[in-house]
Amino acid sequence: MRISYKIWLDHHGKAFGDGPYELLRRVEKTKSLHQGANQMGMAYSKAWRLIRTLEQRLGFPLLERKAGGASGGGSRITPRAKELMRHYGRCRKDVKDTMERIYRRHFSSLAQKVRK
Amino acid sequence: MRISYKIWLDHHGKAFGDGPYELLRRVEKTKSLHQGANQMGMAYSKAWRLIRTLEQRLGFPLLERKAGGASGGGSRITPRAKELMRHYGRCRKDVKDTMERIYRRHFSSLAQKVRK
Repeated sequence: MRISYKIWLDHHGKAFGDGPYELLRRVEKTKSLHQGANQMGMAYSKAWRLIRTLEQRLGFPLLERKAGGASGGGSRITPRAKELMRHYGRCRKDVKDTMERIYRRHFSSLAQKVRK
Repeated sequence: MRISYKIWLDHHGKAFGDGPYELLRRVEKTKSLHQGANQMGMAYSKAWRLIRTLEQRLGFPLLERKAGGASGGGSRITPRAKELMRHYGRCRKDVKDTMERIYRRHFSSLAQKVRK
C-alpha cells in the first residue's frame, strides 16, 4: 500500500500543476511550444489553449511568442513563468518528501497487515 | 491563489480516499449502507460496488452485513475498517495542516503578486 496524491494551484480554477510545469520546462529547453507539446504527446492546439487558460487564471503571461525570422519564430517563457516554475518545483519536491513521511507516520503499522 | 490537492491510498488501484472515508463514517453512524449512500447522494448499487472494489483491493472486508431480523438488517463497519478510518482520518488532517504550511513556505511572496 502507498499514498498517492495530486497537487495543483488554484486561482479562479486550476491555474498550475504538474502538467503545465512539465510543458513549460520543455518549452524552456526547446524554445518552442510546438516542440514542447510534441514531447508531451499533446496536440499544439491543446497546449496553446491550456497556456491561454492558465494565463487568464493567473493574470500574467507565461509565454512570449517570437514571430517569424530566420529561426522560424518560437516561444520563450516569461520571467514570471520562470519564477512560478521555480516556486512550484520546490513546493512539489517538499510535498513529495513530506507525503512519504506522513504516510509512514500513520500507516507503517497498518501497511504491514494489508496483504501484498 | 491557494494550493489544492487530493490524496488516496493505492493498493492494486485506488483503495481508499475521502469518498469512501465519508461513506463509511455515515454507515458507522446509521448502521446502514442504504442510508449512508443516500446521505452522500449516491445510488445504493454504486456504493455497494465501490465497497466491494475497495475490499478486493485492500484484501479485507470493510462491512459486515446483518440480514433480516426485527430491525430489517443493516451494515456495520468491521474492526479493520474502523482501524483504517482512524489512520486515514489522522493522516488526512496531518496532510491538510502540512500542505498549508508548505504552500506558505514557497508561495507567500509570489501569491501577493498574483492579482486577486
